[in-house]
Amino acid sequence: MKKILVANRGEIALRVMRTAKKMGIKTVAIFSEIDRNALHVKFADEAICIGKAPSNQSYLKADKIIEVAKLLQVDAIHPGYGFLSENAQFAECCEANHIIFIGPKSKAIKIMGSKLAAKEAVKAYNIPMVPGIDEAITDVKKAKSLAAEIGYPILIKASAGGGGRGMRIVENETELESQMKRAISEATSAFGDGSVFIEKYIRSPRHIEIQIIADTHGQTLHLFERECSIQRRHQKVIEEAPSSVLSDAMRTEMGKAAVKVAQSCEYIGAGTVEFLLDAQHNFYFLEMNTRLQVEHPVTECITGLDLVELQIQIARGEALPLKQADLKIKGHALELRVYAEDPLNDFLPSVGLLETYKLPKGKGIRVDNGYEEGMEVPIFYDPMLSKLITYGKTRDEAIQLMKKAIDDYKMEGIKTTLPFGKFVCEHEAFKSGQFDTHFVKTYYTEASRKIYLLEEAKMAALIAVKQFIHDRHTLHLPRSKS
Amino acid sequence: MKKILVANRGEIALRVMRTAKKMGIKTVAIFSEIDRNALHVKFADEAICIGKAPSNQSYLKADKIIEVAKLLQVDAIHPGYGFLSENAQFAECCEANHIIFIGPKSKAIKIMGSKLAAKEAVKAYNIPMVPGIDEAITDVKKAKSLAAEIGYPILIKASAGGGGRGMRIVENETELESQMKRAISEATSAFGDGSVFIEKYIRSPRHIEIQIIADTHGQTLHLFERECSIQRRHQKVIEEAPSSVLSDAMRTEMGKAAVKVAQSCEYIGAGTVEFLLDAQHNFYFLEMNTRLQVEHPVTECITGLDLVELQIQIARGEALPLKQADLKIKGHALELRVYAEDPLNDFLPSVGLLETYKLPKGKGIRVDNGYEEGMEVPIFYDPMLSKLITYGKTRDEAIQLMKKAIDDYKMEGIKTTLPFGKFVCEHEAFKSGQFDTHFVKTYYTEASRKIYLLEEAKMAALIAVKQFIHDRHTLHLPRSKS
Repeated sequence: MKKILVANRGEIALRVMRTAKKMGIKTVAIFSEIDRNALHVKFADEAICIGKAPSNQSYLKADKIIEVAKLLQVDAIHPGYGFLSENAQFAECCEANHIIFIGPKSKAIKIMGSKLAAKEAVKAYNIPMVPGIDEAITDVKKAKSLAAEIGYPILIKASAGGGGRGMRIVENETELESQMKRAISEATSAFGDGSVFIEKYIRSPRHIEIQIIADTHGQTLHLFERECSIQRRHQKVIEEAPSSVLSDAMRTEMGKAAVKVAQSCEYIGAGTVEFLLDAQHNFYFLEMNTRLQVEHPVTECITGLDLVELQIQIARGEALPLKQADLKIKGHALELRVYAEDPLNDFLPSVGLLETYKLPKGKGIRVDNGYEEGMEVPIFYDPMLSKLITYGKTRDEAIQLMKKAIDDYKMEGIKTTLPFGKFVCEHEAFKSGQFDTHFVKTYYTEASRKIYLLEEAKMAALIAVKQFIHDRHTLHLPRSKS
Repeated sequence: MKKILVANRGEIALRVMRTAKKMGIKTVAIFSEIDRNALHVKFADEAICIGKAPSNQSYLKADKIIEVAKLLQVDAIHPGYGFLSENAQFAECCEANHIIFIGPKSKAIKIMGSKLAAKEAVKAYNIPMVPGIDEAITDVKKAKSLAAEIGYPILIKASAGGGGRGMRIVENETELESQMKRAISEATSAFGDGSVFIEKYIRSPRHIEIQIIADTHGQTLHLFERECSIQRRHQKVIEEAPSSVLSDAMRTEMGKAAVKVAQSCEYIGAGTVEFLLDAQHNFYFLEMNTRLQVEHPVTECITGLDLVELQIQIARGEALPLKQADLKIKGHALELRVYAEDPLNDFLPSVGLLETYKLPKGKGIRVDNGYEEGMEVPIFYDPMLSKLITYGKTRDEAIQLMKKAIDDYKMEGIKTTLPFGKFVCEHEAFKSGQFDTHFVKTYYTEASRKIYLLEEAKMAALIAVKQFIHDRHTLHLPRSKS
């Protein structure tokens, strides 16, 4: 494997190319017209423009990308995450053109891309899933007997709903009948379809996922967990490894379950099995992501492995260079996604010119970055500028480092999630490890933001006053004497 | 058993007598001079003064109490909690005078009263305990190898210290040497003894205890758990059953461990086995309390049992009327200890006259009370006025009921923990079930109290203004028209 095309942009394109260069492999970048000055274009050995800014005219054009790959005699394509990374047809198309797709076989992508197919695949492996029913119902009596089996609290979901619309939590049987009737009548008038699904309501869920890696020689390993419970609008903002709540026994149990999920679809390469963990530490399989995840660096920190290097070795047909027993967790890592969003205005996108852009540095700090000073942040893509990763001996140390790194991250021109990251790092619920996926809704309220900003402003004023006094004493006064 | 003497005062004396009366058993109260008008004196069939206010001159005078019991031909003595309830000699003295002590045999009290004896007793039963060393050391090298066995973080405790003095948390081996040396030098200068103990540091502990009950026919049952993590100065303020974090499997496992602890000292009667639960849901045996606990009502609520009735039946030699499989948890119960303490002034005692004292009432509300309007709260005893217990179908319902009950508890003249109870019930960490024994230290800070009080004051002002407007419209205006 002499030349890899990275079918992506931003930090992940750069991150993949870094490892390729380290391994002596040439790199090809693709880019949209608007990205012509982007860092990944500068960093690659060769770069080729493949169309206009909107993704469907460039980064999503599978045929065009394959054409470029053949033209430049590329041996393999790394899809990164997003874009074509979980497109089974693209993976098939690569193979048909004798280009290695650095990822799983298209069959595994297909199975895990469908909730039903995934459920069917893991059925034989005894993987715990959120208890619920497979088909929509409208019969109250049936709902009662099903709910009794599932156990309260339960969630009623409109079959035609989505994104949380038409959902109701039912605490006990007494409430079921009236809630069910109301749900049906609401769903009928809102969606024209009154049928509902019933499932167990997980009251205080934490998002825990297991990194797995499998070679073509029959070995599948798990690389422990990542916790990604700090989310805004169901999207991760802060991730960490290990989780603060898993015992070694739980870790092993979830790791084994994840390996089984991977084996159920004959998985090859790096993948992630996502679970929900409830307050009583029961875990439930959610889905498998058949690609490298945004948050993979925290796993790299605590295992000392390079996941992209392993992906490439596996794609070359090599056996994994280690066994499950060789893997040990060392230290604790945190990742903050630095999004171009306004954390004080409902995380709305904040695009524009990066007037100042200086990254933090130092021991235990890693920045997977996609931008530089003077660049425009385009509106067309995922608004992530970089990932700020800190790594310490303990969780507390990683949190302290993160706070320092946020302070050292100098940026002007656009709003980012950096202040939100600091809010989380200073919040008792996060520091103590006692939080769930409702963290933002529960603690990042209008009131708490105001109090927090007030404190920040007070601190800043205090520092300014101290600096002023210091300057007067050390600079101006001696001068006036001379 | 025709007549019981209750060797206690306040709410627990009244609570025991209530069940005795229900069972057709006569009751005898004892009281100190200052308690002559107390409720438990009025409620008993007979009452006798046994000395001056300080406990060692009245409620702790074992000989005097036995003398009174013999004089009034009492069949049994119920010690309540505190005072003589865990005094093995008193239990022996009762037996020697042919009076039934409603509690365990003195042997069990002795074993569980000593940390070392308890450890020795449970050794054969495979009960998990906080890993640590049995003897104090001063050797750094030895400390290193022991700490490596125990696993970090560890706690270094001065052997001559106590109450948290001379304690240090060590996160990893790098820190151990310097921390150990500093701990030894500090302990030497503070206590004249530089030796230290080492044990595992439990970072985010929850206090979970299991109620057990054993008859003289060989049956020992557990009545599930109580969670008592909301504490001020290492003393419980709010308790609940069930805990929001135990899975059924954990509950069964801890229940079985508690039964084994009880069996290890041939326990008879009602007792409580206390555990610490860490963030990863490992549990560690702390101690066994060989008496009825303050917080027993929450267990009564969720099991439908009367623990005092069971205690009396067991003391009469009867077999427990149920088996483990008969026991089911129904609903959720909360208890707030209403202490005569100022929650805005570091929980300092606040004694004085109860100018107004009206208790809340209604479905799902139980008050185990020891006082009435016009009474003085004496400085000599535990400052608990009553226990406010709420019981609902769900935890949320119990919390809502508690808030309502606190609002309906009308009291003037002294400060109590009622506003603290409301603070907790309205706090997200408590509502979500994500808290530990550090709750008060972490969340009940000066700043958060101020913000909370400000909100309360704003609400009160709003209500007053609304009332004023309402009054003007409904009362004054029509009058001025006539």
